[in-house]
Amino acid sequence: MRYIDLRSDTVTQPTEKMRQAMFKAVVGDDVYGDDPTMTELEDYAAKLVGKEAALFVPTGTFGNQLALFTHCNRGNEVILGDDCHIVVHEVGAASVIAGVQLRTLVSNKGELNPEEIRKRIRKEDEDIHYPGTGLICVENAHTNGRVISLENMKSIYGIGKKHDVPVHLDGARLFNAATYLGVEAPEITKYCDSVMFCLSKGLCAPVGSILAGSKEFIDKARKKRKLMGGGMRQAGILAAAGLVALKEMREGLKLDHENAVLMGEELSKIDGIKARKEDIHINMVFFSIKDTNCSSEKLVQGLYEKGIKINGEEGGEVRFVTNHWTTKEDVLYVVECVKNLV
Amino acid sequence: MRYIDLRSDTVTQPTEKMRQAMFKAVVGDDVYGDDPTMTELEDYAAKLVGKEAALFVPTGTFGNQLALFTHCNRGNEVILGDDCHIVVHEVGAASVIAGVQLRTLVSNKGELNPEEIRKRIRKEDEDIHYPGTGLICVENAHTNGRVISLENMKSIYGIGKKHDVPVHLDGARLFNAATYLGVEAPEITKYCDSVMFCLSKGLCAPVGSILAGSKEFIDKARKKRKLMGGGMRQAGILAAAGLVALKEMREGLKLDHENAVLMGEELSKIDGIKARKEDIHINMVFFSIKDTNCSSEKLVQGLYEKGIKINGEEGGEVRFVTNHWTTKEDVLYVVECVKNLV
Amino acid sequence: MRYIDLRSDTVTQPTEKMRQAMFKAVVGDDVYGDDPTMTELEDYAAKLVGKEAALFVPTGTFGNQLALFTHCNRGNEVILGDDCHIVVHEVGAASVIAGVQLRTLVSNKGELNPEEIRKRIRKEDEDIHYPGTGLICVENAHTNGRVISLENMKSIYGIGKKHDVPVHLDGARLFNAATYLGVEAPEITKYCDSVMFCLSKGLCAPVGSILAGSKEFIDKARKKRKLMGGGMRQAGILAAAGLVALKEMREGLKLDHENAVLMGEELSKIDGIKARKEDIHINMVFFSIKDTNCSSEKLVQGLYEKGIKINGEEGGEVRFVTNHWTTKEDVLYVVECVKNLV
Amino acid sequence: MRYIDLRSDTVTQPTEKMRQAMFKAVVGDDVYGDDPTMTELEDYAAKLVGKEAALFVPTGTFGNQLALFTHCNRGNEVILGDDCHIVVHEVGAASVIAGVQLRTLVSNKGELNPEEIRKRIRKEDEDIHYPGTGLICVENAHTNGRVISLENMKSIYGIGKKHDVPVHLDGARLFNAATYLGVEAPEITKYCDSVMFCLSKGLCAPVGSILAGSKEFIDKARKKRKLMGGGMRQAGILAAAGLVALKEMREGLKLDHENAVLMGEELSKIDGIKARKEDIHINMVFFSIKDTNCSSEKLVQGLYEKGIKINGEEGGEVRFVTNHWTTKEDVLYVVECVKNLV
Repeated sequence: MRYIDLRSDTVTQPTEKMRQAMFKAVVGDDVYGDDPTMTELEDYAAKLVGKEAALFVPTGTFGNQLALFTHCNRGNEVILGDDCHIVVHEVGAASVIAGVQLRTLVSNKGELNPEEIRKRIRKEDEDIHYPGTGLICVENAHTNGRVISLENMKSIYGIGKKHDVPVHLDGARLFNAATYLGVEAPEITKYCDSVMFCLSKGLCAPVGSILAGSKEFIDKARKKRKLMGGGMRQAGILAAAGLVALKEMREGLKLDHENAVLMGEELSKIDGIKARKEDIHINMVFFSIKDTNCSSEKLVQGLYEKGIKINGEEGGEVRFVTNHWTTKEDVLYVVECVKNLV
Repeated sequence: MRYIDLRSDTVTQPTEKMRQAMFKAVVGDDVYGDDPTMTELEDYAAKLVGKEAALFVPTGTFGNQLALFTHCNRGNEVILGDDCHIVVHEVGAASVIAGVQLRTLVSNKGELNPEEIRKRIRKEDEDIHYPGTGLICVENAHTNGRVISLENMKSIYGIGKKHDVPVHLDGARLFNAATYLGVEAPEITKYCDSVMFCLSKGLCAPVGSILAGSKEFIDKARKKRKLMGGGMRQAGILAAAGLVALKEMREGLKLDHENAVLMGEELSKIDGIKARKEDIHINMVFFSIKDTNCSSEKLVQGLYEKGIKINGEEGGEVRFVTNHWTTKEDVLYVVECVKNLV
Repeated sequence: MRYIDLRSDTVTQPTEKMRQAMFKAVVGDDVYGDDPTMTELEDYAAKLVGKEAALFVPTGTFGNQLALFTHCNRGNEVILGDDCHIVVHEVGAASVIAGVQLRTLVSNKGELNPEEIRKRIRKEDEDIHYPGTGLICVENAHTNGRVISLENMKSIYGIGKKHDVPVHLDGARLFNAATYLGVEAPEITKYCDSVMFCLSKGLCAPVGSILAGSKEFIDKARKKRKLMGGGMRQAGILAAAGLVALKEMREGLKLDHENAVLMGEELSKIDGIKARKEDIHINMVFFSIKDTNCSSEKLVQGLYEKGIKINGEEGGEVRFVTNHWTTKEDVLYVVECVKNLV
Repeated sequence: MRYIDLRSDTVTQPTEKMRQAMFKAVVGDDVYGDDPTMTELEDYAAKLVGKEAALFVPTGTFGNQLALFTHCNRGNEVILGDDCHIVVHEVGAASVIAGVQLRTLVSNKGELNPEEIRKRIRKEDEDIHYPGTGLICVENAHTNGRVISLENMKSIYGIGKKHDVPVHLDGARLFNAATYLGVEAPEITKYCDSVMFCLSKGLCAPVGSILAGSKEFIDKARKKRKLMGGGMRQAGILAAAGLVALKEMREGLKLDHENAVLMGEELSKIDGIKARKEDIHINMVFFSIKDTNCSSEKLVQGLYEKGIKINGEEGGEVRFVTNHWTTKEDVLYVVECVKNLV
């Protein structure tokens, strides 16, 4: 049975073209630097985001944590939003691997106040009581479904530059942000020193993310990737799918966004459902079912019986995520099913 | 030359009685549990704050970090105010020694919103992406000079209990808080599972702080104190002064507070000086000299020439701290000197 | 141009069957537990080594470090050989990720003296100065090319059991060891609590290793794998190749070993070359060229020109590693080329 | 009742002169650099061991761990003897605070083989699998009671220099070593980049140790001491005793050593007791009671009843430690009591 899967865009299946590319991939031992497909992917990825160099990593969490580990000395402070993925969804890894102190800010729907960041930047030699600020982290698109404005990113990057603190961009859904903003990725990534973006999620590669930055940064990260257990061998298999993801799948994100907007609009028409339509920047729709008679459990179970997979409420809201395999017909079918349940 | 030292109450000299107590102290090897004066201090201190057991540590930072290290597993999350001592003035130690992830909240003049805490508490088995919350930290009196209300503490402690998360109190100036609130210390410490308080600072002991909590907690902390290099030998010398501090110096804090209030009132009368009089709960006066013609450097230098030591501005404010050795006459002399400078 | 690659068995290309299996693999989001091919691999792998459960990890280093991280509390001591992979070739990761103290023993060609292990085991509550021993690590086959005897493993495991210290087996080349000993893998793995083995290397899968142990251990490891950034999504692609590796490639290791023995014998016939023939247990030949006129650099370069890739000397010896893609003819050709160079 | 305490020289009581010095000590807030007695001690201590600068720390463990933390980057490797204090008696702290990987060598009665050290030194950029060696640690006098030869120290230091790896000396009993060798301390400490030595133990100060090295090293260590919670305030109290310890107590170590030799000789005359006389370099006597009818427990209990405190067997041997408060008469009395018990 085919399910419509709205739990996350992490569930995306690889495309036929990816499978063929993997099948035919010329591979080698990447720890020796011998994998031509991996080298091609890393070169392509670096250029795509306007950075000198790039490195393949097994997951987005791996890439973010590797960035923290590479940018910072242990004991450094990292300034970032209280609701970002690194804080909320990476199992506290920053305190284990990089060994850094998080200094969280309350974000305004994902946007950090540059002045609040500035006030928290510290130099180690300023005061014997102070750790040094090692990094600022920004997330775009944000896991809350919104895209951070270029003005905000520029402003934060300017503060980083002024105080000599690098900026890392968690761009797990970087191309969703670029699609929403109608710009090429470097228009976003020029406001960061390093960026992590995923080949999986909306781009459908089965496994893998990219960390990009200066050549010096990536050289250092490559060594630390080995320490973290990420030095894979014939990873060109995965790189082959990643190349298809970057070359051919970015365009389709637009449709995912349109489907999300459609989903938001149609859900809003249902009595008792409040969808945050103004926050549908990418492929995510958040809505509340509090004012309906339907519980979270009932919704999950009821839709499952109709061939639709969703996650239960988190923080009082249900989230539906569209992806490459979600059609307009699926959207309308899902809305119909929800309507019948609530 | 005798200086009036307003930089901090950490500058307090030991009293004559403390020197005599140290001179005569009966001591032994405390790692073997053989130091009777230390044992007396730890017993006395535990009772004084209504806890089962207590442990001597070389500094307040040591005691706070030991609390984090003992309460938490590595990778746990700690919820605390963005402006508290553990975050701002302990060199990022939480990420090094305990290895925990800080989850900072913007405080309201030192008070944390219990509901904001509750929203951030997480269980490790709740979601594969989540670290577990290992600890909530409260600071009272706060380094901003204010005392947190018992209602706020009770409310936070209630949330901790409900969700099975311990609460640690950074009570470096616990007895200043008790003095301000007009209660005995246990009225405050009943709202925490562990407390650190200093024998130095306003209480004038030369060296040392106490960590107190349940017997099980202190047993565990004793071992970890050894790991952190805090297992001192004939520490009864320091304990002797600590006993005088706890038995005889708490009363005097009232006078320090009155002197601070007087200082605040008199400074406010000077043209261009804005003292935050409503925030003078303990022995600290914060004021701004922005509207005067006097720079921070000039004030520091000018007062130094008059026999007065102060620190320069931090965060746009000057801080004066009164202590046991500051007399009412000193206060008036200082105010006079400031008036002549601005 | 086809190279004969003797640098390591990590260079092995995936087989045609693996490529086909990857092409057709039914996959899902493995973080949600939805990838049937991954589930099949983990189940198969667990049974193959006689353990309750298994977990896929991106590399052998990842698997070993995850084992340390899962078995130990931070600050625990780990007893292991001074020449093992975890000490020598994992970038010091044990001090970063698990945060454990290594207690290295000088090994006898890879074998640890059980009595020396026993003398180093410590209990945390035994003495306030002691960390607790958290783990003993054994490596079989060893990176020195030898296989540890079952007697030695049994004896070490007995000591672990007696003192309640778990034993982890770095079995990166577990099936090479089983092949040499002429036993099924569980005859080896019954002497450990957890085992890591590689699907890559001699078994030719492009990416991936397995960590196996009790169900409770693997459940805990799964969470920590997420923290370490190893929670991959449609990893069934890699699992498909892994299944072929485990089902169809183990048999072929025998031939790799025979080719290594042949290589050792033939190299020994060359004047000035000393091959450690008695140490050729698996697919590795170590030999010295000190008594020839040929330098390490010249050998590397000279063979490269003949289509043969090797690494330079390490610790005064050259290592040749045979693998699935090395034929008997390759062996003889390589020997001929070496003879012409020295 | 006065006990003869042979458990360790950590049990030493401060002398009358120390108590007077502490009573009169001029003190200030040492975190502000305002404590003249502390400054005097640190200057005196630095000169005494021929180093540029020195830093007071609460314990020997604190000083050693601070040295590791200051010399090394996290993840570095530290080469040291398997039986040294840092490995055996510091609770695994190296893996927690400095976060380094220990590479232990089997020592020859405390002496490390320089060639074995050399073989283990690694450079981070040498191989992607390698951590860098951050430090070599030597212990002199060793906790096994022996003094390491200057030749051995010189040789190890030469290797460190050649490979650009610093050498730290755990000189908890540095002046015992100097006394045995009949040299001034700098004749020993010229073979190390940093040294920790204790003011307590044989020198009788109640609390405190010194870490000495280059000015740059000590500046860095001062900041990290703050992070570790060792930034004490009016620590001049302790410094006053430390100055007496360094100025007046070093001479007396000779007598402690003579008493230990006497103790060893007299114990050896008792039937069934084997004292390692050749290993009595300082104030420690190790002997076996296996060939007597007396158990460890019986010996401890029996001597306690006679007013003598000892520790039980460790590693099959009993250790007696003489100190400033142990007289020749005490030694003979102890031997008499032992004779009556076995």
